[in-house]
Amino acid sequence: TSDNLSDVCCKMSSPGPVGAHSDEDVICSLVQKSQEARNQAYCPYSNFRVGAAVLASDGAVFTGCNVENASYPAGLCAERTAISKAVSEGYTSFKAIAIASDLKDQFIFPCGVCRQFMREFGLEWNVYPTKSDGSYRQMTLKELLPHSFGPDDLSARYNH
Amino acid sequence: TSDNLSDVCCKMSSPGPVGAHSDEDVICSLVQKSQEARNQAYCPYSNFRVGAAVLASDGAVFTGCNVENASYPAGLCAERTAISKAVSEGYTSFKAIAIASDLKDQFIFPCGVCRQFMREFGLEWNVYPTKSDGSYRQMTLKELLPHSFGPDDLSARYNH
Amino acid sequence: TSDNLSDVCCKMSSPGPVGAHSDEDVICSLVQKSQEARNQAYCPYSNFRVGAAVLASDGAVFTGCNVENASYPAGLCAERTAISKAVSEGYTSFKAIAIASDLKDQFIFPCGVCRQFMREFGLEWNVYPTKSDGSYRQMTLKELLPHSFGPDDLSARYNH
Amino acid sequence: TSDNLSDVCCKMSSPGPVGAHSDEDVICSLVQKSQEARNQAYCPYSNFRVGAAVLASDGAVFTGCNVENASYPAGLCAERTAISKAVSEGYTSFKAIAIASDLKDQFIFPCGVCRQFMREFGLEWNVYPTKSDGSYRQMTLKELLPHSFGPDDLSARYNH
Repeated sequence: TSDNLSDVCCKMSSPGPVGAHSDEDVICSLVQKSQEARNQAYCPYSNFRVGAAVLASDGAVFTGCNVENASYPAGLCAERTAISKAVSEGYTSFKAIAIASDLKDQFIFPCGVCRQFMREFGLEWNVYPTKSDGSYRQMTLKELLPHSFGPDDLSARYNH
Repeated sequence: TSDNLSDVCCKMSSPGPVGAHSDEDVICSLVQKSQEARNQAYCPYSNFRVGAAVLASDGAVFTGCNVENASYPAGLCAERTAISKAVSEGYTSFKAIAIASDLKDQFIFPCGVCRQFMREFGLEWNVYPTKSDGSYRQMTLKELLPHSFGPDDLSARYNH
Repeated sequence: TSDNLSDVCCKMSSPGPVGAHSDEDVICSLVQKSQEARNQAYCPYSNFRVGAAVLASDGAVFTGCNVENASYPAGLCAERTAISKAVSEGYTSFKAIAIASDLKDQFIFPCGVCRQFMREFGLEWNVYPTKSDGSYRQMTLKELLPHSFGPDDLSARYNH
Repeated sequence: TSDNLSDVCCKMSSPGPVGAHSDEDVICSLVQKSQEARNQAYCPYSNFRVGAAVLASDGAVFTGCNVENASYPAGLCAERTAISKAVSEGYTSFKAIAIASDLKDQFIFPCGVCRQFMREFGLEWNVYPTKSDGSYRQMTLKELLPHSFGPDDLSARYNH
C-alpha cells in the first residue's frame, strides 16, 4: 500500500544531511512518483524497467521512464525523459531527481549519459538513487559527475 | 493571431491525400501546438529552435522541444522529447507528429535519430514537416525511413 | 573459403545498375571486410553482431563493429565506428559502405542514427546491405534517408 | 617541436602517484598522440577540436577525434571514436586514455557519455585530461564516474 511504501521510503539508507520532516516528505513523494513512472517503461530488449521523477525549483514534478529501441543506441533513459519533459514545459531549474528500478539489493544510479544531460542545468542538485523497496540515498550531481564538462568549458574555447 | 495561423496552416504545400475538413482541423491544431512547443526550446548552442507535437491514437497530444547540451551528442531533439513524454504517460500508439522550426523557406524534416526513435512504434503514421508560416507537408514515416531496421529485424537473429 | 565467399558475394540480389567487373570486385572485397569486422563485435546485450566497411574516395577502407554498453543508449553501431575511424584518419569523402550481420534471410540495413551520421558526408554514396551469405543490395544514402536534415538546413537558420 | 612538446607534457600538473621514468614517457607519448589526433577533428558546429588516444593493455595505441553532425545529438566525441576503433581491432582491455583540446587554461575532461562508454571496459584505468600545452592530470575512471551503472547492475535484474 501507499502507506507502507511511504514508510519504507523514509528509511534513509546512507549517511547524509538529515532534512527536516517536510523535506523527507517531499523526497518520499518524489521516490514514489519515480516508482509509479517505472510502470510505463518501454523496455522489451533489456527488461530493465526504470522510472524517474524530477523536482523543479518551484515544486513541479515531471516523470519519465526508459524508452528503448531495436537499435539500442537510439533508446532513451528515464532520467532524460523526465528532464526533457520538464524543459518542454518551461522548466530549467531543478532541485532533485529520484530514480527507481526493480533492483532489490542495489541502488539504481544514473548512467553517464544522463549525468551529462542533467549537468547542463547545474551541478548542485540532488540525486536520489533508490532500491525497489523505496529506500534511497542522497548525492549531489557534482558528486556523481566530478570534473564535469559543461557550458563554461565549451565557451572557454574562444578565450585562447 | 490564432485565426491567421490556422489559415496559413491549412495551405497544403505538397501533393497528398486530401483529408476531410475535420482531419485538416486536427492537423492544423497539431502544427500549431508544435509551434508553441518551439518556444520552450533550450538551444543555446545551435540557436535552432525546434518544436514537435505528437498525436496519439486516442487523440491525446504531447509536445516537445530540443534540449541541447554542452557536449553536443548528449542533447535531445524535439521529436524524441515529445514521444518519450507520451510513452511515459502510457501511450505507444501514434497517428501523427508535426515538427516546427524557424526556417521560413524550408520544411523541417526529422533527423535520422528521431526517425529511428519513431519507428519503434510503427511505420504507418504521418509526419508533418512545416515551414515557419505553418504550411506543411504530409508523409508517412515509412516514406522517410525506407528499409528501416526495427524490432522484427532484431528478433530475427534467433532464426538462424 | 575466401573464393567461395567471393562467389556468393557476387550474387547481386536486387535489381540495380550493373557495374563493370572491377566494380564488382571492389564491392565484394568491401562486403568481405564488413563480414570480417563483424567478428570483433562487442554485443553481449543484443547478441546481434554487426560489421561495417567504408570505402573512402581514394580507395582506403576502414572497418567497424558495434560496441554495446550496459546503458543501451550509450552504445555504438558498426557503421559509426567505421566512419569515425575514417574521419579520425583524415577521410571525409566516401564512396560506399557495406554492412554485415548474421541474419540469413534479411538484408541488414543501417539504423536511422547511422544514416544521419553518414549523411553529414554527403548523400550520393552507396550503401550495401548484405545477408550472411554475402549477397548484397545496392542503394544510395539518399534513397535511405530522403528529405534528410543536413548541414544546409542548419545553416539556413540565419537566412530569416 | 616534438622535444619541446615532450618537455611540457612531462610537467605533472596535479598531485598524483609519481610513476617511474618509463611510465612518464608512455604518458607523454599518449598525450602527444591525442594532440595529433585533434588535428583530424570534424567540428564545424562547435569549433571545439578534441583528440583522444587510448592505450591498450598490450601497448597498442588508437586515436580518435570528435565527429560532429548537423543534428547535434548524432555526433560523436573523440574518446568514443578512439575506443570503438580499438574494439573494432580486437582490443577490449585498456590501461589509459589521454584527451586533448585547444583549451589553454583548463584541462579537458571527458563528458558523461564517454565516461559511460569507457566504463563498459572496467573502472580501474587512467584518464589523462590535458591542457593545450601538454600538461596533464591523472585520474582513474572510477574517480570520474563514481557509483557507475555497469554490466553488473544490468545483470542483477534477474536476481530478484
